[in-house]
Amino acid sequence: MENRNQTTLPLSPSEMTIQPIGIIHTPFYGKEEAPVQGAFQPEAVGMVEVFPEFSAALKDIEAFTHLYLIYRFDRAGEIELVRAPFLDDEPHGIFATRHPCRPNGLGLSVVRLLSREVNVLRVAGIDVLDATPLIDIKPYIPRFDSYPDAGEGWLTDKESRSKPSGRE
Amino acid sequence: MENRNQTTLPLSPSEMTIQPIGIIHTPFYGKEEAPVQGAFQPEAVGMVEVFPEFSAALKDIEAFTHLYLIYRFDRAGEIELVRAPFLDDEPHGIFATRHPCRPNGLGLSVVRLLSREVNVLRVAGIDVLDATPLIDIKPYIPRFDSYPDAGEGWLTDKESRSKPSGRE
Repeated sequence: MENRNQTTLPLSPSEMTIQPIGIIHTPFYGKEEAPVQGAFQPEAVGMVEVFPEFSAALKDIEAFTHLYLIYRFDRAGEIELVRAPFLDDEPHGIFATRHPCRPNGLGLSVVRLLSREVNVLRVAGIDVLDATPLIDIKPYIPRFDSYPDAGEGWLTDKESRSKPSGRE
Repeated sequence: MENRNQTTLPLSPSEMTIQPIGIIHTPFYGKEEAPVQGAFQPEAVGMVEVFPEFSAALKDIEAFTHLYLIYRFDRAGEIELVRAPFLDDEPHGIFATRHPCRPNGLGLSVVRLLSREVNVLRVAGIDVLDATPLIDIKPYIPRFDSYPDAGEGWLTDKESRSKPSGRE
């Protein structure tokens, strides 16, 4: 995360501030190593550390098998509204992709919950860089969230591949 | 949204600012009317208005059938880390629920995309209050996001019901 000193910034009427509730620890230290999507590397294990002051908010989370993590892409490059994503060479609108360089810089992943130890969740299928700031955790509930027949848009027939080099 | 005047607030090193990219228009004007989850009212139609300056970021979005909307619960009440959610009378940790009164106040819904007209998306299965600030749109991709066999935690056997009255 940007390590700036305490400062004051003007807030426009519609701006809102958010604050990390924890940190996601993963084995991915550089952008080249992180998988394009967690679903492509379901065995990748990470530790979701929730700050102790939010530990109580995890009560009963261990009864879920899958969770949503919302986090901040804190090392993303410049925002471009239309760009070629990792899985395609054609440019698409950023809201039609999951690319990190997006307005507000929030990421979303579904992970498998393996275990919980107090304020630390062990999860699988994680695809973020180590030390990514965690913004929210929500339970994944198949009745609300599972749409196996949804279309895949431009991702139809796109297979996992390495991130094209030299491209953010 | 809170309509405060231009102001300056101190930002701690870990705070981040986010800004709406649009507004979600729905037929739900009061908390009592909004469905507990969009999946319980799949026919509810809303209009997702993306601000014109972000319109280009929608390129190719119409090829997807389902989208994630990330939005701000701008009329949520006080945050409690453990509380009884709408679908249960037992208290659960807020990160084990989808309840609006949560740290950072972000909501997440999967909606069906019906049509797009320039910067306005017509969607179904929407469950938010009218005029909710939109923070991000991401394509729903079943290979990454659909887990029909995921567990339901405390929601197992919980059916849709009216929101308990007098409870946030």
